[in-house]
Amino acid sequence: MARPRLSEKTRLRLLDEGVSAFLYNGFHGTGLKEVLDRVSVPKGSFYNYFESKEAFAAAAIRHYADCFATRMDREIREAPDPYTGLRRFFETLMADFEAAGYVGGCLIANLGGELEGSDLCRETLATAFREWRDRVAEVLRQSQQLGLTRGDVDAGDLADLLTEAWEGAVIRMKIDRSLDPLRRVLARLLDDYFRPG
Amino acid sequence: MARPRLSEKTRLRLLDEGVSAFLYNGFHGTGLKEVLDRVSVPKGSFYNYFESKEAFAAAAIRHYADCFATRMDREIREAPDPYTGLRRFFETLMADFEAAGYVGGCLIANLGGELEGSDLCRETLATAFREWRDRVAEVLRQSQQLGLTRGDVDAGDLADLLTEAWEGAVIRMKIDRSLDPLRRVLARLLDDYFRPG
Repeated sequence: MARPRLSEKTRLRLLDEGVSAFLYNGFHGTGLKEVLDRVSVPKGSFYNYFESKEAFAAAAIRHYADCFATRMDREIREAPDPYTGLRRFFETLMADFEAAGYVGGCLIANLGGELEGSDLCRETLATAFREWRDRVAEVLRQSQQLGLTRGDVDAGDLADLLTEAWEGAVIRMKIDRSLDPLRRVLARLLDDYFRPG
Repeated sequence: MARPRLSEKTRLRLLDEGVSAFLYNGFHGTGLKEVLDRVSVPKGSFYNYFESKEAFAAAAIRHYADCFATRMDREIREAPDPYTGLRRFFETLMADFEAAGYVGGCLIANLGGELEGSDLCRETLATAFREWRDRVAEVLRQSQQLGLTRGDVDAGDLADLLTEAWEGAVIRMKIDRSLDPLRRVLARLLDDYFRPG
């Protein structure tokens, strides 16, 4: 049997549509058929790209995390200092949430709540969360070196708190349909608790 | 047609099973049939209790929030002071999470992530979250009056941060299968940031 011809472009379009579908409808609420219809891929060839819906979800989580990291790196790089870059990155996320009418939110939090059963997805989510936390820790460490963030608490500890509080606030944003929870987390943590004494 | 005889006991058993099913499998991942089979209620009479799966989920959220509040009130009442009561309440939640192998977590966070589509469920979740936050704010206010919690930040603001950070940490607990995120949130907030200066 001939090896099926795989297109990287199709794979990426499947992942983009997958992220969107899982983000808005969750894992169980997402039908593969709708995703495939949107990308015009027949069901048979889907399985040349991904072994199962579970493997597809894991790849979508990975894809989401990579896009998120690229975006964060750009904001940090273009900012005058790491503290301002981090704040700006959160501002761009809030602008997106507002534009989306507060639905969707964060794929990591949504699937983290829903995916008990899949070790593959759970481990992919854990890695994605950890990478995000490490990235934020690195920025906070640079900010500490510049005296813009308190230096008496480990940057990793601050990053754990900030990323976890942010995820909880994203959940509350979704149910309250308001950016207030996110604004409050930044004001309380980045602009107060994390400030040098 | 005779009005169907409704039993409060059956209603409560349906709600208990509903909470458990939605907690572990999410809204879309829960089949009404499994819930009904466990309570030995035929599908036809289910609809005498609840109008729809959506109405059932909203009632399950309400039931979960009520049980949660009762439990928290008891811990606070039995503790020597409100700060200790709040800490003990969080400790009992952690003991439960550990006993459950870190699956399940919090129904509010799980369904908050998943339920975009239902205004009824979303509003019920928003009310449940707000009530929890108000309850924590009240305890922190009492703790402030006793000088056990810093008094220069509004107790409501502290409660927003604590409950949202807790929810985010519960999500991370689920994907990391570890209580560490929860322990860190309590250590950073209750035992540090919230302390009197």
